[in-house]
Amino acid sequence: MSRKVSDSTVRRLSQYLRILEGADPETRTTLSSEELAEEAGTTAAQVRKDLSLFGSFGKRGMGYRVDELADHLREIMGLKKAWRVALLGAGRIGSALFEYGAFRRRGFDIMAVFDEDPAKVGSSWGPITVQDVSELGTVLAQEAIEVVILAVPAHAAQPLAEEAVAAGARGILNFAPTQLRVPDDVAVQDVNVVTELEALSFELTHPNGHGSAIGNGAG
Amino acid sequence: MSRKVSDSTVRRLSQYLRILEGADPETRTTLSSEELAEEAGTTAAQVRKDLSLFGSFGKRGMGYRVDELADHLREIMGLKKAWRVALLGAGRIGSALFEYGAFRRRGFDIMAVFDEDPAKVGSSWGPITVQDVSELGTVLAQEAIEVVILAVPAHAAQPLAEEAVAAGARGILNFAPTQLRVPDDVAVQDVNVVTELEALSFELTHPNGHGSAIGNGAG
Repeated sequence: MSRKVSDSTVRRLSQYLRILEGADPETRTTLSSEELAEEAGTTAAQVRKDLSLFGSFGKRGMGYRVDELADHLREIMGLKKAWRVALLGAGRIGSALFEYGAFRRRGFDIMAVFDEDPAKVGSSWGPITVQDVSELGTVLAQEAIEVVILAVPAHAAQPLAEEAVAAGARGILNFAPTQLRVPDDVAVQDVNVVTELEALSFELTHPNGHGSAIGNGAG
Repeated sequence: MSRKVSDSTVRRLSQYLRILEGADPETRTTLSSEELAEEAGTTAAQVRKDLSLFGSFGKRGMGYRVDELADHLREIMGLKKAWRVALLGAGRIGSALFEYGAFRRRGFDIMAVFDEDPAKVGSSWGPITVQDVSELGTVLAQEAIEVVILAVPAHAAQPLAEEAVAAGARGILNFAPTQLRVPDDVAVQDVNVVTELEALSFELTHPNGHGSAIGNGAG
């Protein structure tokens, strides 16, 4: 049997983890699927279905042990290892990401920063010196970088992605508003605010029925 | 018949529009579903299925007229009107978003900016003066703001969302890493880089099969 794990399931798992980690360890050592669902804005059945994809958690009537389930989720999501990350683009978005503590807390260690702007190259970001993008391939290979964050303009994204993949990167978090072409074994996640805005516009334009339903009535 | 339009369909529509708008009007006046699929990283059947949800476009063997389909998509996505937008949070993310031309090009007019930091309140962002967040309700109602962009810390997001909704906002683009609770008729799109990073981590951890399939073989 092949079980496809949908993007939306993965996003909910990430959300469950955030809820579990936010639970007060003094007062909430267990959480029911109903409680988890309530906080995640979904149904208890969905919570149980999502988690059942990865094994058997919790006891009927007892709920989930918060620390145990959080630990399982970290394992499932691959968050128990430290990923070696490089940031490409030292502009406004790049620097906001660099200073965003949540990356480090999630095991994403930004170990190198690159830019093409001579005014930025050589500047110190904490312990890191911004490097010239011409050094990209060499440094990524040397540092065994696994993940690159692309915070560059659209036209620069594809050649940099190719260079990063050639140097061994297996994952790309892409902030450039462009569709990257990469080999099938390279994982790409796009963060595109225009897409999100357009999705919002779509929802506002088709408000009948929650969850962007269109049409007229039940089918 | 009720036709549910999934989030992923909406995202692909947004992508098709970007491809159509990027096509050279001198040399490419039509595009086939195959060409559109190729550029969007999907299949021609998927393109035809997505578009068929909204009517009949293109002629068999002729492809889609680029300008016509782009116009239809703008209509479908609600991008032919100008949305009245307020930005909450004048920090690094807020200012990156404010300067991001793509918002305006997509009809999202940022008409007001708010912050709670006295050092930011009163400063000029182009034609806009950053206002104190205590003015939020009054200004949103006065300016008939429809959409708010939440670029504030997690703890500030929920109360501000409630205030915005009470003042008439119908859509929220949420950059705060928190699950907002809003009435059903309010549209929310979350932009959460930690979620995207975790999804990337999941994909890297479960590489067998494209598209985060796990399991062992065909079912």
